[in-house]
Amino acid sequence: MSLEPEDAAAAIEARHAEKMRKKQAAQAKIMADKTREKGLLIVHTGKGKGKTSAALGMVVRAIGHGMKVGVVQFVKGAMQTGEARVFAAFPDNVEFKPMGEGFTWDTQDRARDIAAARRAWDEVQRMIADPAYHMVLADEMNIALRYDYLPLDEVLAVLAAKPAMKHVIVTGRNAPEALIDAADLVTDMTMVKHPFRAGVKAQAGIEF
Amino acid sequence: MSLEPEDAAAAIEARHAEKMRKKQAAQAKIMADKTREKGLLIVHTGKGKGKTSAALGMVVRAIGHGMKVGVVQFVKGAMQTGEARVFAAFPDNVEFKPMGEGFTWDTQDRARDIAAARRAWDEVQRMIADPAYHMVLADEMNIALRYDYLPLDEVLAVLAAKPAMKHVIVTGRNAPEALIDAADLVTDMTMVKHPFRAGVKAQAGIEF
Repeated sequence: MSLEPEDAAAAIEARHAEKMRKKQAAQAKIMADKTREKGLLIVHTGKGKGKTSAALGMVVRAIGHGMKVGVVQFVKGAMQTGEARVFAAFPDNVEFKPMGEGFTWDTQDRARDIAAARRAWDEVQRMIADPAYHMVLADEMNIALRYDYLPLDEVLAVLAAKPAMKHVIVTGRNAPEALIDAADLVTDMTMVKHPFRAGVKAQAGIEF
Repeated sequence: MSLEPEDAAAAIEARHAEKMRKKQAAQAKIMADKTREKGLLIVHTGKGKGKTSAALGMVVRAIGHGMKVGVVQFVKGAMQTGEARVFAAFPDNVEFKPMGEGFTWDTQDRARDIAAARRAWDEVQRMIADPAYHMVLADEMNIALRYDYLPLDEVLAVLAAKPAMKHVIVTGRNAPEALIDAADLVTDMTMVKHPFRAGVKAQAGIEF
């Protein structure tokens, strides 16, 4: 049995409309349950690209809503000139602290790395404690935790005690399990394909 | 049959020389390619958060470098007031086209959705063709591909023929395999934990 073309088209239309009705109902049900607002502890981890970029996207959204955001960079180079210039256009909304000067793969001085991580963490703590900030980004802090440059217990205690409405974003590979357990929102950026593997170098607008 | 010792030695030499030539050629190719710059086709897919945010982060980096970026939104709500306000601060660098008005879960009209997707895709094509743009973001275009609102073959052909130095970012769940195959950089945002599951609603600075 075959349908006339217009009947077939009508059937496709009807199926689509039914599917969308179900989706809409499901979506409405989900959203009806979501009544709570709270400051989120957000973790972006994984080996893929986009951990810092996605945090940066959230910072931009927050800026757009007139919020004040503190950005602390634990590793030099993760955030660079590109975003710094955009932050500079919103001096009342963003305080950007590049603290990773002494902490790169080139240093082989553990004591110096620990001191740099401590200074960065002190900035994060100050911003978490200061009610003026709505959001704090601890960019690449997972790296400092991974190398035990910061005591995990201390970091977890500070995050657990953060003001209820403050958003804190922590990025970097190898997020500790205990941080993932404590977080509200965790995304693992999984590398599917990376242009470095095809010999393409880091480029403005993409990596920095 | 066995070779004379000197022939066997010559064969080993020849194999070694051939192997070294290949190694050297491969190494030279890698080194030569390391200086390569090219416009990337970037795909952010997966069920986790951060697909649009990470694209937004790249847009911010590009803006910071003085590039011109075109942003086309296929689905209403994926980008909202937050980022629009930041874009508005850089009118010479960003053209933001929210084209998803007729394309949300609320519409139950397939023909209208297809027309909306087509209008958005026409904008993307215009920006890809226009040398003024360094980067084009087709936000949530994967959704339009997923529902066959746009012909995949046409999209792939346009992307394959894009100007060599132009970056194109396509976001959204369920990226078609053929798009992933064609892309230079693919990240799958994997959901580890999502606050909606704990009853927390969408919040300014995070989702919009």
